[in-house]
Amino acid sequence: MHAERRVRVGIAGVSGYTGLELLRYLVRHPGLELVAASSERQAGEPLGALWPNAQGRLAQLELVDLAGLKGQRPEAVFLCLPHSQSAVPAAQFLESGARVIDLSADFRLPDAELYGKWYGAHPRSELLGQAVYGLPEEFREEIRRAKLVANPGCYPTAALLALIPLLRTGLVEAEGIVIDAKSGLSGAGKTPKPHLHFVEANENATPYSPGRQHRHVPEIDWYLSQAAEREVQVTFVPHLLPMDRGILESAYVRLAGKASVKDVENCWRSAYAREPFIRILGDGLPSTKRVAHTNLCELAVREGSEGTAILFAAIDNLGKGASGQALQNLNIMYGLDETTALW
Amino acid sequence: MHAERRVRVGIAGVSGYTGLELLRYLVRHPGLELVAASSERQAGEPLGALWPNAQGRLAQLELVDLAGLKGQRPEAVFLCLPHSQSAVPAAQFLESGARVIDLSADFRLPDAELYGKWYGAHPRSELLGQAVYGLPEEFREEIRRAKLVANPGCYPTAALLALIPLLRTGLVEAEGIVIDAKSGLSGAGKTPKPHLHFVEANENATPYSPGRQHRHVPEIDWYLSQAAEREVQVTFVPHLLPMDRGILESAYVRLAGKASVKDVENCWRSAYAREPFIRILGDGLPSTKRVAHTNLCELAVREGSEGTAILFAAIDNLGKGASGQALQNLNIMYGLDETTALW
Amino acid sequence: MHAERRVRVGIAGVSGYTGLELLRYLVRHPGLELVAASSERQAGEPLGALWPNAQGRLAQLELVDLAGLKGQRPEAVFLCLPHSQSAVPAAQFLESGARVIDLSADFRLPDAELYGKWYGAHPRSELLGQAVYGLPEEFREEIRRAKLVANPGCYPTAALLALIPLLRTGLVEAEGIVIDAKSGLSGAGKTPKPHLHFVEANENATPYSPGRQHRHVPEIDWYLSQAAEREVQVTFVPHLLPMDRGILESAYVRLAGKASVKDVENCWRSAYAREPFIRILGDGLPSTKRVAHTNLCELAVREGSEGTAILFAAIDNLGKGASGQALQNLNIMYGLDETTALW
Amino acid sequence: MHAERRVRVGIAGVSGYTGLELLRYLVRHPGLELVAASSERQAGEPLGALWPNAQGRLAQLELVDLAGLKGQRPEAVFLCLPHSQSAVPAAQFLESGARVIDLSADFRLPDAELYGKWYGAHPRSELLGQAVYGLPEEFREEIRRAKLVANPGCYPTAALLALIPLLRTGLVEAEGIVIDAKSGLSGAGKTPKPHLHFVEANENATPYSPGRQHRHVPEIDWYLSQAAEREVQVTFVPHLLPMDRGILESAYVRLAGKASVKDVENCWRSAYAREPFIRILGDGLPSTKRVAHTNLCELAVREGSEGTAILFAAIDNLGKGASGQALQNLNIMYGLDETTALW
Repeated sequence: MHAERRVRVGIAGVSGYTGLELLRYLVRHPGLELVAASSERQAGEPLGALWPNAQGRLAQLELVDLAGLKGQRPEAVFLCLPHSQSAVPAAQFLESGARVIDLSADFRLPDAELYGKWYGAHPRSELLGQAVYGLPEEFREEIRRAKLVANPGCYPTAALLALIPLLRTGLVEAEGIVIDAKSGLSGAGKTPKPHLHFVEANENATPYSPGRQHRHVPEIDWYLSQAAEREVQVTFVPHLLPMDRGILESAYVRLAGKASVKDVENCWRSAYAREPFIRILGDGLPSTKRVAHTNLCELAVREGSEGTAILFAAIDNLGKGASGQALQNLNIMYGLDETTALW
Repeated sequence: MHAERRVRVGIAGVSGYTGLELLRYLVRHPGLELVAASSERQAGEPLGALWPNAQGRLAQLELVDLAGLKGQRPEAVFLCLPHSQSAVPAAQFLESGARVIDLSADFRLPDAELYGKWYGAHPRSELLGQAVYGLPEEFREEIRRAKLVANPGCYPTAALLALIPLLRTGLVEAEGIVIDAKSGLSGAGKTPKPHLHFVEANENATPYSPGRQHRHVPEIDWYLSQAAEREVQVTFVPHLLPMDRGILESAYVRLAGKASVKDVENCWRSAYAREPFIRILGDGLPSTKRVAHTNLCELAVREGSEGTAILFAAIDNLGKGASGQALQNLNIMYGLDETTALW
Repeated sequence: MHAERRVRVGIAGVSGYTGLELLRYLVRHPGLELVAASSERQAGEPLGALWPNAQGRLAQLELVDLAGLKGQRPEAVFLCLPHSQSAVPAAQFLESGARVIDLSADFRLPDAELYGKWYGAHPRSELLGQAVYGLPEEFREEIRRAKLVANPGCYPTAALLALIPLLRTGLVEAEGIVIDAKSGLSGAGKTPKPHLHFVEANENATPYSPGRQHRHVPEIDWYLSQAAEREVQVTFVPHLLPMDRGILESAYVRLAGKASVKDVENCWRSAYAREPFIRILGDGLPSTKRVAHTNLCELAVREGSEGTAILFAAIDNLGKGASGQALQNLNIMYGLDETTALW
Repeated sequence: MHAERRVRVGIAGVSGYTGLELLRYLVRHPGLELVAASSERQAGEPLGALWPNAQGRLAQLELVDLAGLKGQRPEAVFLCLPHSQSAVPAAQFLESGARVIDLSADFRLPDAELYGKWYGAHPRSELLGQAVYGLPEEFREEIRRAKLVANPGCYPTAALLALIPLLRTGLVEAEGIVIDAKSGLSGAGKTPKPHLHFVEANENATPYSPGRQHRHVPEIDWYLSQAAEREVQVTFVPHLLPMDRGILESAYVRLAGKASVKDVENCWRSAYAREPFIRILGDGLPSTKRVAHTNLCELAVREGSEGTAILFAAIDNLGKGASGQALQNLNIMYGLDETTALW
């Protein structure tokens, strides 16, 4: 677990929920050194002002702006910046020789036109070809060599982990897939908004952007289509729940031919036999609380009405759904034990 | 709103969540007089010991056991008793001439054999034929004349209100219906259990009894099959959320032929044009908080993937999902304004 | 309960939490007619857009601005406006002959200089002399005749109900009174702020403005000093808790001479013998959940260390702490049954 | 951070909240090896059945009963057993040569008679003399050499850390100390009880065992009296809040002579200058969320009414209030870096 040499990492946009969660993971990592962290608003303040639980040197580390972060020349950088504001800094860090793990959506869709429909014109579309989608269970080898990793969205992570192996092996039909997703409120970001006010969000469950409206839809479709080798268009409905963190997705699929839920479970067990962060439940059912503060994804399958199956996947939206997975990717990129700081 | 004569009502099993909620509604009702309320455990104590917000005469009303309740000869009685323990008292009250609104599952399924599969042998199957399913939007006229009303389950109420008009008019396919239901924890009853401990339930979202396992499945299937005039078998997955009350159901259906989501909305608007407790949302989406402490059901429809629609229904599981609907039924049975005490 | 004639009331600033709560109470009130409601931001929209559970005529009522509200010439008006923005409209409504119940702090302190220290220069200090402090348990007769009622603050309501009778009768010492207050988050208002974000407020308990800093301190001191007939300066520490509504205050006092906690309880029972909204607990202890959505104040007393007592008071900050009490005041002002619409 | 030799530890009663929390800390500790863990109910099952996030060897570790735990001859054992059931096993482990950290109350009070008043006859009072109270900030040297450490109660930890240095230096009066404590619900234990049901506890704040009734009162009094060198009798009022974890205590004290709140802060800064887990806030105020999942205690002081001060202390009841502190004690006992696995 001990690295002779520690990788010098930076975090851009450290003040949001994913940036702060990265800090919580990094402090347990013996092989990394945080050389700088940026926050446009709090540049000049010590990191301890942002994250009071920082200790020692880290508490004193002066927050910088993005230019300041570049000046520190980190070997690897986590970009926790808003969508469409990440691509330009990513390009600059790459030019300076750093490897980049981008937690925004800017490099998740390999197609500039598709990106444009959902996010506007891509500022650095020439880089799309070299970005690797940071889902280790699918792209571990590519991640190992990648200069630019597009860390998956929180909803797509759970959906893809449940569905990709089943579509690849043809166990489930590519048509008619429904994903009913439930999320805690940290997934909505840290900026105060009326619907995130405690009194509005507490004791409330409500859907939003249902059907084909959420920006994670093209991301889910794309990677499922790759696995199925045909076009997949899911129905995707996210819901907000009164809790801090956690995503639970219940996916409704038709089984192909004579496939059974047992086949589904076996397929997962085979695909994920060596995966440290996938937990396939036989008897129990996934629970967001059980995976809270972890990098785990819990999976289970049950019978639906005739010929159908229900897939359940639970992750922590800030763990496997964002910062945990980002660190897993970095561990892979630098040949470190993949689970370092993630247990 | 003023009744010359007040209907003399009783409540059996007043100490559970549905019984207490009935009290909250009854105290606002000028046309009813609560003559007695039973609780096997707290018989002999004043009602005020159970429900501190009771006022005046009500606070002093001595709780009785079931025999004591019968002795008071109420004209109408609400049975808030556990499943399979309600049928015998129901028969006895009917014999004494009282009209019965049963909040348990004992008379919801018209078929004794089907009941037997889910709840064990029916203790009074000869009464099944005369029970009326207490969903006013479907069975108002029958309820008006009924001696025995089977108050619908909480999950079925939301599902049936969303789906019955669409199946009846053939707007949606009867096959492949998926109902993803989310519920607050009062739906799980008042008895302390490990998974209902605050620390276990808080910050948690988890499914239970998924697919075809929950006891509300046959109830949903039965009434949907009636509407569709063919057999319907839904996939039904309930989830527990960290909140006191509220049910949100997201139903995934295939549109028949060239039907559109606009047709679905129009169908609802037509079917529910005169319904006081159905609110069809055009722009917004249902929210459990907005319907909390009301007898309302909010409905909305959105497009899913091609040829599919997503139906949303939100109710308060203790309101339209139980005690509110029970009172609505009583108002109908006694020719009172249907909304009395429900706004 | 039936009024031949209904009082024509208006609400200024209906879109905040206290305004909305007033609506919930008013719809149950047979003796009032809401003639107009103002919201500067939503003027022109129907009230149903603001409060979806509004029914019938109320749902259609067009929201107006403050000028529009004056134009409707209500007989009585509730002012749910921010501190220091309420005094001028209050004066205008008074001039037009309306009676005013002001839920802001503008007329709670009878002294313009004292007001100035906490809120800035008083815009209509000439009216301070005629304002009556709307705590019915203390000032019922004055309220009956009042043109201008200053509805008490939420924290002061609980504190004063617990302490005034004890200071008046000399049962507790005027020195060294400590009030440790806990509040749900609706007390902090509806405007989104970082510390009110669900993810920040959930799973958190934290004090704010402790000691002598909170604006409710002079209000508490003033009325306690009146009761004690000497100067009282309390230590007051509010805390925010992760819940929607409810205030629980635990007050720590020294018993005078040989006074006992039994004497305290007897004093309350005597002072509040005919009060409909004061519930004195012998065995149990106050609970915010039990008084939620009510106009009740629960009180209890227990022994502290030698010679001291602990007083507990629980209210709903939006009920007895604001809108419920405002309606109680209006009922008194118009000779209606004081509990109308409040049970 | 690397120990050549790892200390072989055991946990008795691992299935409760403090036992599970210990596991979460232990897995990060490179210097300890968990050789066995007992649970009377789940003996024979793998630890993974109890704690699904256990990994590798730990997941497979078979739970034993208490006899089985003794059989494994751990060098050090954490006793997470109920009060009065801990003393006998403690004696047996001591006889076998193990060092014991007892998280129950059995050895916290050095006086058998006093213990008897609150917990019944002490089963092993002869050991009271050798037990060391496990508050490292006070008794670090004694802990280093101790065979038997009595881990402090959650409420006493926060109270003593705030008050001991001030009483020792005479900055605050020993008389009239009031401690108003607020706790999350994991402090009430894992056994399901009516008041811990989500629907009863959510949206509720309520006091319990107020004044001089709670079992932590004699523990607080004892160690404060030692510090003050005179008898101290506090008024102590615990409250339950709707959250999983966290304790916030607001203590109300009279300043001695001309002492100021600045003196209080300076006293703390001096007493705790080298303490890794005490964070003294100048500007901000303690928050339970900020210290959640840590071994930190946040302190702050503010002015109350004339001559008084308000002390705030926040801890995680399962961290510094129980399992975190237990591990801190073990680190001290074995000469390990005191913060190992606690950041």
